[in-house]
Amino acid sequence: MSRRPGNELVFLPLGGAGEIGMNLNLYGFGPPDDPEWLMVDLGVTFGDGSIPRADVILPDPTFIAERRDRLIGLVLTHAHEDHLGAVPYLWDRLRCPIYATPFTAAILDAKLREAGLNKVPVKIVQLGSRFSLGPFDLELITLTHSIPEPNAIAIRTPLGAILHTGDWKFDPDPVVGPVSDEAALKALGDDGVLAVVCDSTNVFEKGVSGSEASLLETLTKVIADSPNRVAVACFASNVARLETIARAAAANDRTVVIAGRSLRRIEAAARGTGYLQDTPAFVDEADCGHMPRDKVLIICTGSQGEPRAALARIAAGTHPNVALEPGDRVIFSSRVIPGHETSIARLHNQLVRTGVDVITWRDHDVHVSGHPCRDELAHMYALARPKIAVPVHGEIRHLIEHARLAKTCQVRTAIVAENGSMVRLAPGRAEIVDTVPSGRLMVDGNRAVSIDGEVVRSLNRTIFQGSAVVTVVFDRKGRLVESPMMSTTGLTDAGEDEVESDVIAAIETAIEKAGPLAHDEAIVEAVRIATRRAFFATIGKKPWTRVHVVRH
Amino acid sequence: MSRRPGNELVFLPLGGAGEIGMNLNLYGFGPPDDPEWLMVDLGVTFGDGSIPRADVILPDPTFIAERRDRLIGLVLTHAHEDHLGAVPYLWDRLRCPIYATPFTAAILDAKLREAGLNKVPVKIVQLGSRFSLGPFDLELITLTHSIPEPNAIAIRTPLGAILHTGDWKFDPDPVVGPVSDEAALKALGDDGVLAVVCDSTNVFEKGVSGSEASLLETLTKVIADSPNRVAVACFASNVARLETIARAAAANDRTVVIAGRSLRRIEAAARGTGYLQDTPAFVDEADCGHMPRDKVLIICTGSQGEPRAALARIAAGTHPNVALEPGDRVIFSSRVIPGHETSIARLHNQLVRTGVDVITWRDHDVHVSGHPCRDELAHMYALARPKIAVPVHGEIRHLIEHARLAKTCQVRTAIVAENGSMVRLAPGRAEIVDTVPSGRLMVDGNRAVSIDGEVVRSLNRTIFQGSAVVTVVFDRKGRLVESPMMSTTGLTDAGEDEVESDVIAAIETAIEKAGPLAHDEAIVEAVRIATRRAFFATIGKKPWTRVHVVRH
Repeated sequence: MSRRPGNELVFLPLGGAGEIGMNLNLYGFGPPDDPEWLMVDLGVTFGDGSIPRADVILPDPTFIAERRDRLIGLVLTHAHEDHLGAVPYLWDRLRCPIYATPFTAAILDAKLREAGLNKVPVKIVQLGSRFSLGPFDLELITLTHSIPEPNAIAIRTPLGAILHTGDWKFDPDPVVGPVSDEAALKALGDDGVLAVVCDSTNVFEKGVSGSEASLLETLTKVIADSPNRVAVACFASNVARLETIARAAAANDRTVVIAGRSLRRIEAAARGTGYLQDTPAFVDEADCGHMPRDKVLIICTGSQGEPRAALARIAAGTHPNVALEPGDRVIFSSRVIPGHETSIARLHNQLVRTGVDVITWRDHDVHVSGHPCRDELAHMYALARPKIAVPVHGEIRHLIEHARLAKTCQVRTAIVAENGSMVRLAPGRAEIVDTVPSGRLMVDGNRAVSIDGEVVRSLNRTIFQGSAVVTVVFDRKGRLVESPMMSTTGLTDAGEDEVESDVIAAIETAIEKAGPLAHDEAIVEAVRIATRRAFFATIGKKPWTRVHVVRH
Repeated sequence: MSRRPGNELVFLPLGGAGEIGMNLNLYGFGPPDDPEWLMVDLGVTFGDGSIPRADVILPDPTFIAERRDRLIGLVLTHAHEDHLGAVPYLWDRLRCPIYATPFTAAILDAKLREAGLNKVPVKIVQLGSRFSLGPFDLELITLTHSIPEPNAIAIRTPLGAILHTGDWKFDPDPVVGPVSDEAALKALGDDGVLAVVCDSTNVFEKGVSGSEASLLETLTKVIADSPNRVAVACFASNVARLETIARAAAANDRTVVIAGRSLRRIEAAARGTGYLQDTPAFVDEADCGHMPRDKVLIICTGSQGEPRAALARIAAGTHPNVALEPGDRVIFSSRVIPGHETSIARLHNQLVRTGVDVITWRDHDVHVSGHPCRDELAHMYALARPKIAVPVHGEIRHLIEHARLAKTCQVRTAIVAENGSMVRLAPGRAEIVDTVPSGRLMVDGNRAVSIDGEVVRSLNRTIFQGSAVVTVVFDRKGRLVESPMMSTTGLTDAGEDEVESDVIAAIETAIEKAGPLAHDEAIVEAVRIATRRAFFATIGKKPWTRVHVVRH
């Protein structure tokens, strides 16, 4: 008589545990060998330039895609790219229903339509609502963040309750939307919380993140001090910031113009779901040119120096509708996303070179973070009082520091789990019990490929040493019919034709040495070695070399 | 009767005015069409990853190389890479004598020998010395910085005196070397200074940069709090920091080991020129393994996350001699060089993942900058009292802010000149009178190539869209003899063989359509278009395509 194993409750991050961005969280409940799975968030991250072509990066969903018959749904905590941006790319491999609150659903819907995906079942759930998915009893708990409708999810199971925070802060005056539902958090804590899975972004920052409303005064003043045009760059999805800026503009009798496609999309989603109701409609960028310089304020995308965004084009003088002149002012109402330091500096330089004045959060209080600093984290643990803390949404250094902090908040167990670590939360002692395949994909052309695959490897080889493709043509007697043809990448500059002819001569010599009886493999190897040696001797590079052998 | 034009005094930066790094300054005196030229500094900068293969970047010296018969010498202000690192690469195009103080000359000498350059005339000049080069009467004025022997140069000419500061700060206790020679600066000011050409690095930082000596207390305490091994990462050339760390180690009864080739080189140059005389010889890294964990301190290179430096190899567990274990501690006694944020974060993550504790300047006072903050700049202008300020050693945003600051310091004229701008300092009103060719080269293999040239362009094309080289073979009747051969870069991943065979089929169709009478150019174009279209249809990429046509 075999003993049937009992149910287990596990947490398994496939993204976001080891980086800030690209969130993919799984909760499993059931027998260890075949639990039912709930997915929370499915986001992208953006490349930092260290991997060629890796601009948009996705979590590798293979583990859960292979078990999609047991995947009961995807719940989205909020509409940021790093929480839902991967849905259009990966939904086809998952094909599960998606649950989101109205604003998040509106944003997702626009993205899905743009990707030509019309049949994705997106189910709208209300703020603060409670619903069941398989063995999981879910309750959305309203928090505050830099986008409307950020939800923590209370996940109740027969083995205990989990609080999955999503991205959050405790903002006493968030400008848009209600304050955090601390009563619900406390009630959950009173009932007993097994584990909190929590945002680690700002764990190195002391104190609190500050309130969105606190920016109004500074922004109003900075705009009042500006005699000419003012452009404000911010994250498009920060609807509260749009409202704060609009209020500051109104206080200065300026009309708000918005520039940038994602701002239009967010404005539509926000107004369509009941936000920005008291804010006058933003003016289209096409009308910007006619307005007096001191009566206009332009909200634009591109605060991270993204080359195709509105601000980069304005700075380069190539924007079709918006131009800045000496004496105008740009306010960066945003932080620097790590990896974007140099692109932002480049943009900043380009602006001041044309005589435009630049204001950033470094010199004025024109930005607050949307993530909890240490005092806010401590307050969250005081409300929820979990047995276990599992930090997510951070690099490993953030996770480790967050685990340390949680332990000072009377949390008995803190588990640092990186992507692919399966954490058994119950029954028994919480611990990492398995490691499953995880990884990163990148969007490449119209598909996603592995970030460690041949596409990137071949690019890296070429960037490092260059590449050469050589065609050699033989007659029936094994003699070269004509001079080898060669096409190279990353090897010679204008005026270096002689280098290539020297290499061709070296290839001819090598072929002669190999003799007329040499078979194709020997020819390929001889040409490869001769090409690499000859380039190395002349320019110091050993190119990746491929050979096309043609025989008459 | 033609009037002979009088002499002019000009300043012409070819590097460093528009970036922090890659300094190349020229001073010209004589008739406007053919002045004699003095060069100050000839440095490199390091790539930020935005340009493929551009790791080491040099100023394009073409303008002065074409006038090298009028180049009377190169004077080096100090031994940092961004002030002398380009000498081994570019001296052959200049072939002028080089003047440097003993420590700087020792560093340069080692670099030249490593590059196999044995005949470069390096002339040693003493600290505080005065000597003439053509029309220029030069006086070295000792300042303080993060390396021994930083010199400002007073350049006296018949048309006025210039103070070229080099990199500097006012450090009241620099640990190594004397304090700044304020008396000489004041005396120069008393005699009258036409122009100050000055470091802009820290122009956005309020107050003062702080003293090297102030670090000793914190470092001693942080080391005292460390129960196990301690490794300190710092810039190898910061000899004062080496001494500060050595004192902090001695106070904790720890032996100092150094790991990293550049540290060995700097130690040799420093001891050989009279520095570190009271500091016990550093122990070789080979002996590190035998020492008790609480009795050793390892100074290592790699504070910027450079992948081949000692600290990266220690973190990866691949260093031959130094290993760190859980409970050991790494102190980053350095700042973050812009562009290195993500490589440093990666290193930090790797260290904490193995259980090593990491301390940085963010949480403890373990670093001071070597560049002047605003109060120091103001004090410099108060001493020198120039008519003209020409900010250098900064991005354009630094130069503009520095010009603004100088004007508040009673400097009448402040000129923002980017690389290639020729500034006439005298006679008459100081202004930019011409723009000469300037640019950037990058070290590539054993030579330098243009950063805007075909090497980089071909890499960028390949990174963006991939590349394909196709060989097509025809018989005498213009019929394809065999299936086209194709080699690609950055296009297909493992398991995508079908994509390539689809493309080959599309090429065959295109050739058939072109017909047997099509000449080579028509074939190349047909194959190129077919290849790009077929890849775009299957994977969404339009590769850069080259075609080798073979005819029997």
